[in-house]
Amino acid sequence: MEAPELPDIVGALRAVLPAECVLERAEERRPYECDGLTAFRSVPAVVVLPRTEDEVRRTLLTCHRLKVPLVARGSGTGLSGGATPHPAGVLLSCARMSRVLEVDPINRIARVEPGVPNLKISEAAAPHQLYYAPDPSSQVACSIGGNVAENSGGVHCLKYGLTVHNVLGVRGYTVAGERIELGGQAPDSAGLDLLALTIGSEGLLLIVTEVLVRLIPRPPCAQLVMASFADVQSAGSAVAAIIAAGTIPAALEMMDRKATAAVEPFVHAGYDLQAAAILLVESDGTPEEVREQVQEIERVLRAAGATALRVSESEAERLRLWSGRKNAFPAAGRLSPDYYCMDGTIPRKHVGHVLEAIERMEREYGLRCMNVFHAGDGNLHPVILFDANEPGSWERADRFGAEILELCVQLGGTITGEHGVGLEKLNSMCVQFSPAERAAFFAVKEAFDPDGLLNPGKLIPTLARCAEYGRMHVHGGAMPHPDLPRF
Amino acid sequence: MEAPELPDIVGALRAVLPAECVLERAEERRPYECDGLTAFRSVPAVVVLPRTEDEVRRTLLTCHRLKVPLVARGSGTGLSGGATPHPAGVLLSCARMSRVLEVDPINRIARVEPGVPNLKISEAAAPHQLYYAPDPSSQVACSIGGNVAENSGGVHCLKYGLTVHNVLGVRGYTVAGERIELGGQAPDSAGLDLLALTIGSEGLLLIVTEVLVRLIPRPPCAQLVMASFADVQSAGSAVAAIIAAGTIPAALEMMDRKATAAVEPFVHAGYDLQAAAILLVESDGTPEEVREQVQEIERVLRAAGATALRVSESEAERLRLWSGRKNAFPAAGRLSPDYYCMDGTIPRKHVGHVLEAIERMEREYGLRCMNVFHAGDGNLHPVILFDANEPGSWERADRFGAEILELCVQLGGTITGEHGVGLEKLNSMCVQFSPAERAAFFAVKEAFDPDGLLNPGKLIPTLARCAEYGRMHVHGGAMPHPDLPRF
Repeated sequence: MEAPELPDIVGALRAVLPAECVLERAEERRPYECDGLTAFRSVPAVVVLPRTEDEVRRTLLTCHRLKVPLVARGSGTGLSGGATPHPAGVLLSCARMSRVLEVDPINRIARVEPGVPNLKISEAAAPHQLYYAPDPSSQVACSIGGNVAENSGGVHCLKYGLTVHNVLGVRGYTVAGERIELGGQAPDSAGLDLLALTIGSEGLLLIVTEVLVRLIPRPPCAQLVMASFADVQSAGSAVAAIIAAGTIPAALEMMDRKATAAVEPFVHAGYDLQAAAILLVESDGTPEEVREQVQEIERVLRAAGATALRVSESEAERLRLWSGRKNAFPAAGRLSPDYYCMDGTIPRKHVGHVLEAIERMEREYGLRCMNVFHAGDGNLHPVILFDANEPGSWERADRFGAEILELCVQLGGTITGEHGVGLEKLNSMCVQFSPAERAAFFAVKEAFDPDGLLNPGKLIPTLARCAEYGRMHVHGGAMPHPDLPRF
Repeated sequence: MEAPELPDIVGALRAVLPAECVLERAEERRPYECDGLTAFRSVPAVVVLPRTEDEVRRTLLTCHRLKVPLVARGSGTGLSGGATPHPAGVLLSCARMSRVLEVDPINRIARVEPGVPNLKISEAAAPHQLYYAPDPSSQVACSIGGNVAENSGGVHCLKYGLTVHNVLGVRGYTVAGERIELGGQAPDSAGLDLLALTIGSEGLLLIVTEVLVRLIPRPPCAQLVMASFADVQSAGSAVAAIIAAGTIPAALEMMDRKATAAVEPFVHAGYDLQAAAILLVESDGTPEEVREQVQEIERVLRAAGATALRVSESEAERLRLWSGRKNAFPAAGRLSPDYYCMDGTIPRKHVGHVLEAIERMEREYGLRCMNVFHAGDGNLHPVILFDANEPGSWERADRFGAEILELCVQLGGTITGEHGVGLEKLNSMCVQFSPAERAAFFAVKEAFDPDGLLNPGKLIPTLARCAEYGRMHVHGGAMPHPDLPRF
């Protein structure tokens, strides 16, 4: 696509927006060059910071008229490059659209602007003993608009669901500046489910300007069980045993020894560094429910071969045990100049197998990898340590990550858990989906955005890209997927 | 669209399908002329009864080549005309694709063909103390494929969700005969959420040939509370009070006196016929959970002004109390030659207001209406009684129903709860959605089916139809919606 000269779009935006909404100086645009996936950087042609829906609409109309690409950005904490700017395009930041518009404790909903940080919603609902459940690690900073774009998760999504299960409606604008309202308070929604389609669509279909979320009652009580295992296989089996016993804990996390060893000197969480892997299993609810569930969890963990169990005896202890898990990624930053946090999902029963395969890959690529899992969901977050200043180091990390994702697909899983596809996993999309499936993605994208202006080049790989990836691929030109049914 | 002459399509199908798959004699085609919405009838040009995915694929390729419409049908129990045949098209019945392919108790999933009756899945899972949660009233007969097409609900969807919350994946074929697999066992799915888009799409996008469903543990205990109220307003307030108290019952149903009076002589459920309305509130879980929740429910109901409470003391009593609710529609058939079961959703707080408005409409249209609600979800099922042999009676029932649905939209609700749009609610879609929203539906439909062959004329009203409905509409040509935000 041929982008117009820079002055055209800046001048056209200045003509319809207040002066302080449009940033064009290089030093103003530079801070937007990347999101949390810092390996991909690109300074946008211009940054727009709207305060109102109407300013979003005017920005879209201008981009649409001039055929200029537009990339929306929440807080820039995304890990897959979903908000990496287009060098000839507009970067639309939702940072100033950050009002909580309504908290309705009777209907248990909140209406918020897209730039509101995830945790602020729970803070606004706290006087009513309500909160918003999905809790990405970045929840202090990450915006609800970004959560909608990426269908974000968090440690408590095992019990409470991903963003798609907690957002009731969105209002947004098409690339042509038409307002669209999707969903609402009713459980069913007439017509095609464009709400679910929009959630996780990474800004390729609509620009969301308002989000209606479900609030839930804050559980009166929570308790955390830490279990130690002598090998990763038995830790993996214990995860499957808990789920098979009919228990859905509030959270069910796993860290291998490489992860606990990285985090413990930094956070002093009290982790068992002798264990090959630990599980963190949380129960929440009424005191009676928690007591009953914790007993059941302890019973199952012992039967599954736990070498030690520790149950939090106070809220302070519970939070300290969590602090290690929540600081696993920053801890990686202390061990290594750079780290690459992966995100894939596998059937729970394969956890041990995948950890062994990752150990083999560590030797093969000459890079260390520590492992943190949302184990209850089968959602892996291997953290590959590398040094971007060392030539070839990022390329090896990138290939290491791609091989982990392909293993996820081979085992019947997927290339994402909660971080989205963005720029990062375009090649892996070629592995996960057949040509017919990718064609369906393209057709839907084209239905909303025929000129391909909204976040171009993300989420859906082109045919050419998949062909190219196929040619250079270890499998000798053929994608492994198409004839393997996924279920 | 110009359909080819009848012999072309029959001959072409006979060339690629076994003889017993193709029904062309008038007496063989006649039984397929309508689904549960019997006011709409149309005999298909030919009926195809495939046994395999490959036969579905061949049927699609043939229709695609000859540009012949195709309507898929499960068990024909749908209530919105979603399976009404096209007179020049193929009716594809999934009745012979009715195998349970796999029950996996460890991963708690079942893989089934689309023609499997809903209840058969739970029967197949019963040896593992598991079941499939969504429970439409027609669950003995209705197929999982039809449930997927309509995003069906049931009395227990308040706690366990609609079909979209319980289906993990589907396999299907595009109109061009390409296989597509959507979803899977992982909680997130990379790329656009085409699985949620497909569920409730009424056969307009894909033909589903396999469904992967979530199974959940059968609760060990369940108890039902029946509460009587002297007026419908306080029954409505009691519903809101239960939800506001933080309790999610397994089911929360409401019947007005017209409904209980219709059903009691027929079923002898033991309903309080003095009450203006009754609530049926179910709790399920472990015995401790149920005891605790039932106490809380009784407390809230008393505080909300219940004039009498009865708690089921045995499983037989619980099932007897349910039998009245479950036979409400057949009971309507004893009171009146015909009945028209509506399906709309409103915010719970408006239940009393809607019941009063329906009483006014009964007088206006000269027709009786009894009311059965999935009250916890705000999902209304007014049952309008009429006599199709009386001239003008169906037309009045039709207008009565449309007015109820428009009231739902005006109150911030929607025109569907769990029965879909089909042919029935096309006009109401003009009221619910703005032109930009309908254009988005059309664009997505076109992305999957550019020639408009799959279930044409359903779900999405044409621009011309909405314009026509606008002209004849009481609001004097303008749809009430577009400038009223829905949330």
